[in-house]
Parts: sequence; C-alpha cells; structure tokens
Amino acid sequence: MATSNGSSTTTDLKSSFLKVYSDLKSELLHDPAFDFTDDARQWIDKMLDYNVPGGKLNRGLSVVDSYRLLKGDDLTEEEIFLTSALGWCIEWLQAYFLVLDDIMDGAHTRRGQPCWFRVEKVGMVAANDGILLRNHIPRILKKHFRGKPYYVDLLDLFNEVEFQTASGQMIDLITTIEGEKDLSKYTLPVHRRIVQYKTAYYSFYLPVACALLMSGENLDDHVNVKDVLIEMGTYFQVQDDYLDCFGSPKVIGKIGTDIEDFKCSWLVVQALELVNEDQKKLLYENYGKADSACVEKVKRLYKDLDLEGVFAEYERNSYEKLTSSIKVHPSKAVQAVLKSFLGKIYKREK
Amino acid sequence: MATSNGSSTTTDLKSSFLKVYSDLKSELLHDPAFDFTDDARQWIDKMLDYNVPGGKLNRGLSVVDSYRLLKGDDLTEEEIFLTSALGWCIEWLQAYFLVLDDIMDGAHTRRGQPCWFRVEKVGMVAANDGILLRNHIPRILKKHFRGKPYYVDLLDLFNEVEFQTASGQMIDLITTIEGEKDLSKYTLPVHRRIVQYKTAYYSFYLPVACALLMSGENLDDHVNVKDVLIEMGTYFQVQDDYLDCFGSPKVIGKIGTDIEDFKCSWLVVQALELVNEDQKKLLYENYGKADSACVEKVKRLYKDLDLEGVFAEYERNSYEKLTSSIKVHPSKAVQAVLKSFLGKIYKREK
Repeated sequence: MATSNGSSTTTDLKSSFLKVYSDLKSELLHDPAFDFTDDARQWIDKMLDYNVPGGKLNRGLSVVDSYRLLKGDDLTEEEIFLTSALGWCIEWLQAYFLVLDDIMDGAHTRRGQPCWFRVEKVGMVAANDGILLRNHIPRILKKHFRGKPYYVDLLDLFNEVEFQTASGQMIDLITTIEGEKDLSKYTLPVHRRIVQYKTAYYSFYLPVACALLMSGENLDDHVNVKDVLIEMGTYFQVQDDYLDCFGSPKVIGKIGTDIEDFKCSWLVVQALELVNEDQKKLLYENYGKADSACVEKVKRLYKDLDLEGVFAEYERNSYEKLTSSIKVHPSKAVQAVLKSFLGKIYKREK
Repeated sequence: MATSNGSSTTTDLKSSFLKVYSDLKSELLHDPAFDFTDDARQWIDKMLDYNVPGGKLNRGLSVVDSYRLLKGDDLTEEEIFLTSALGWCIEWLQAYFLVLDDIMDGAHTRRGQPCWFRVEKVGMVAANDGILLRNHIPRILKKHFRGKPYYVDLLDLFNEVEFQTASGQMIDLITTIEGEKDLSKYTLPVHRRIVQYKTAYYSFYLPVACALLMSGENLDDHVNVKDVLIEMGTYFQVQDDYLDCFGSPKVIGKIGTDIEDFKCSWLVVQALELVNEDQKKLLYENYGKADSACVEKVKRLYKDLDLEGVFAEYERNSYEKLTSSIKVHPSKAVQAVLKSFLGKIYKREK
C-alpha cells in the first residue's frame, strides 16, 4: 500500500486531513458548553485558521500513517476520521505552544506571517487564545472518544506529554534567561534534557502513542517504543541545530540565527567540548552577538573544529543504534511504524 | 458540628489544608515524569509558593466544607486529604488564571505583592509558569484519583470548567479591547455572560461539583445545583462590582478602579439602562478616564440614579430567588451545601 510516496496520493491524504479540520472547527464554534456571541464565534474562527492548519502537518498526519501501518490494512471512514481528529489534537497542541512561545520570545514571524500576538487588535489577547487552543483538545477528545475504552488513557497521555513539553520549555527558559548569558551552563546533558522534553515527546512519541491507543494497545507495554521515539526526536533536533548553521537557507526556507540568539544548540555544546583555551575565549566573546563579524568568527571556529565531521559521525551512530533497536522489536507492524519515522528524517536536508 | 464558626477551629482547618499544599508541592517537585535539574526544582518551588497559597483559599476550603455537609459526619484522614487535594486543584487553577491575566492586563500588584511576571528575573517566563501551574492539576489528579471510579469525571469536569472560564475571559477581552472603548457594547446580557463564564463556573460550581463526585454522585443528576450555583456566582460578582465603587476601601482592602479601567461593571450597565440623554452624554464622556474629576462625575451620576437602591433591590430579589430554589431541592444535605454558600456571601461587605 503506497501511501505517502505518490505525490497525488499525498495530496489526497492531506486534503482528507484538512476536511477533518473544518469539521472539528465547526463543532468547536457550536460547542454547547459555551453560549457564543457572534463576535466570539468570529474571533475563534479567525484565530483557528490563523494558527492551526498552516504548518507542515507532519505530526498530525503521522497519527494516520502510524495507525495504518499498525492495522496493516485499509482504514474505514470512521478510522480515518478518528485518527485524523487525534492528529489535529497534536496540531492544536503545537499551535498552543507556538502562540505562547512567540509571546515569550518576542518573536516577529511564524510560518511566513506575523506572529498572532503581533496581528492588529490581537496583542495580549493572544495569551488567552493560546489557552483556548489548549482547551479545544479535551473538547475534541470528549466529543469523539468519550465512549471508547481508551478515552481515559488518551486524556492521561495528552496531559503527561503537555506537562513534559512545558517542563522542557521551562529548563530552556531558565537556562537561557536574558542578562545571564553564560556559556558554561551549556552542556550535553542540558542540551539533551531540553530537546527530549521540549520537542521529542510531543513531536515523536505522542503521534505513535495515539495510534497505539486506538489500536487497543496498553502504553505500559511499549516503553521501548517510547525510548526509540525519544531518541529519534533527539536526533531530529540535533539535525535542526546543524541545519540552522550548515543547511542551505534556500532549502530550509529560513536563515538560521541560533548563534546570534545565544541558543543552547548542539553545535555550541559540541564546540565547548572540543575547544582549546584560545578557541574557548573566542567562543565566549563572540557567541550571542547580533554582529555579523562575530557570527562569522563562530562559524569559522565550527569549521576549524570539524563540527561537520562530528555531526556526520553522530548521524551515522544514531542511525545504527536506532536501526538495531527497531530490529529487535517483537512486532513487525510496530517496526514498520518506527522505520517509517526514521526513513522520513534520516539525512534530511530540510 | 461547628466547623467554620469558632475561630480556633477555622485556624485548625486552614492549617490542615495548608499541610496538604506542602505535601502536593513536594510530590510535584519529584514527579517521575520529568527529570528535574536542581535549578528547575528551585524555580518551581519558589513559583508555587509565590502564586498558589497566598489567596483567601475560599474556593479550595469550600470543597472540604461541602463534602463534610454532604456526608453529614466527621471525615476520615483520607477524605480530608482527598477533598483538600481537590480544593488545591481549584487554587492551582485560580493561580494559573491570575498569572496569565496579570500579564494580559499589564497589572502591577496581586495579593499585596508585585505580579509574578514583574518579579526580577521572571518576566515572560511567567507565561510558561502559568502553563505549568495548569499542568500540575492533572498530575495531582492522576497521582491521587487514578483508581477512583469518578476519575474520568473529574478530568472532564476540570476540562469543561477551564474551557468555560477561558471562554468567559475571551468575551471580556474582546468586548473591552483597547482603542475601541465603546460603552454601547456594555449591556446586561453581555455582563451576565462574562460573569457567568469567567467567574461563576470555577468559583462556585467547581468546588461543589468536586464534592458531589467524591460522594459518588453523577453530575448529570444535578443540573439544578449547577444553575443555583451559577446564579449565586453571578450575584457574588455583582456584589464585587458594587463594592468596587461603594464599598469601604479599608474593609475590602483595595481602592476600586473599575470606572478608570472602563470595566464592564454591573454598575455602568445599570446606569446605561437608566440614563436620560444628558446623563448618557456625561457617562460616555467621563467613563474610562484616569482623571479623578471624571471618576467623581461618574460616581455622582451613580448616586443620582440611586444605584445603591437598585443594588439593594437586586440583592433582595437574588436572595429570595436563591432561597426558594434551594428549598425545593430533594436532598437536605445538598440544601445545606447551597445554604452554606449563600450564607457566606449574602450582604457581605468585603
């Protein structure tokens, strides 16, 4: 069953997925738990369209893909709807994080348009909109999953993953607080912890966990699946950090600013492991400055330290470790899910 | 069973309630779902102490009170702990709303200290702290209620009430957006809707609903209890609006600024119903100005329109309606809970 290979099929999948977005939005705009005014309904309608469906939708679509691989057969209409609804819950979760992250970071653009809080007449109302996005998830789950045997596990899952993501965001924020720029805090364990909690749980584990629950599985029996996906999510974020500096801006669609922004990137953490005293001094003096001469010096140092080679080695090792972890999994269907994820990200250039 | 009358007993109740706060905090600081760093643990510890236990604790304590009245007997140690834990979940919910509301309003002080986001080194990290506060609720519920038959109903309840509160906050925000000061938007139905959703559900319905669930009740059988409590919560907020202008600052502990802040207060809504053309012009010209002469003119108008008398009449009517709704309830224990709530707020001066 060729799913996401043929480009016409991919388009079909995406349009059926987007159809479910419209259905869910329409339900939320008529939720009987709230007595909407016309103004309120229009606000939510616009806010959802602005923030929810405009991303790559990889996380959401991967719930449908994963469930299809677990089932090993064509899906019924109902299964397509329900897996898509769970996928959209993840997209809603992502939208919620992004709206609030952008406020916290004072960001300017997101997905090629101004951040929601920068839109005319929105401003700080965006913080409450973020909260509403988050609150839509249990509304969707209750409407469509209340009678399912795995309903309570779904609620627990979304709650736990949200907690982990917010905790990851916390260590990222308190490690990189303004006015305390201190490179000595940036170590491999710190980097790993931030990435694992802030990104890997909701981007990699959550979609597969949703598909497993819908397949009737108990998540306690799949701790190793979680471990593999967290490892894969970590590898994915390391690629992201690498591409921010060494990727082609044309291909990745943006110009990286991790060096200027004093980010706890995998590259600077690796550099700190490898520098001699002079190089360390150079790094401390030039990292986190908006000045392009400083950025160039840091990039030069990365090249001198052969971080490209270090990354290639890391990528090879990660791939081997992940492949062998996947091979020993008892279920061929679960193997297929994990291989599909790995195939999508291995040696990616964007 | 004299509970909250004798002042020494009240002190005991409060200190046993506060003991549960310490226990819950300690569990959260060692939650196995997150790999805490020392810095992270210290941050959360400080953030919780700053934001959670410093209020009047009425909402939280009323879960314990309500459950005691429903049971009609002394509580076991376990029942005290569990009702207190649910009470603290409501206090956590309140803390989450307040931290984010203060950011959105650009407020300065809260509970006699600077707003959390104004504290040195906190700033916008406060938004993520608000999210963490919210995320602690399902962590507490999972740890202590996962095995209870009403666990899923508790999750649904907190989710629904949070959704209603955030929705109430949304209509409040979009009705009063800066730069669009327009008194014609302020009507009785708008005021009622904001108050009902933004305040009454979480402050009045939620504590009793928690106690009912713990007593083994099905909330679908208690729609009339919900209606009475929402009505009571609305009356409570109308008192709040009244006291903001006519209360004694010494007694209520703050100087009201609803007129300066262009708030959709019950008073301005009533005034708009009663004004003649000249008075309407005066109100439009002076409401929402920081100038004390303008504020005085509005207060003068309120007196001329006898809003004190209108309020007294409203209070009398509300009390009668509430009392007769309570009388017809089939359960004496539920009646006792509702009467206790009403007794605490009727003719309050702070």
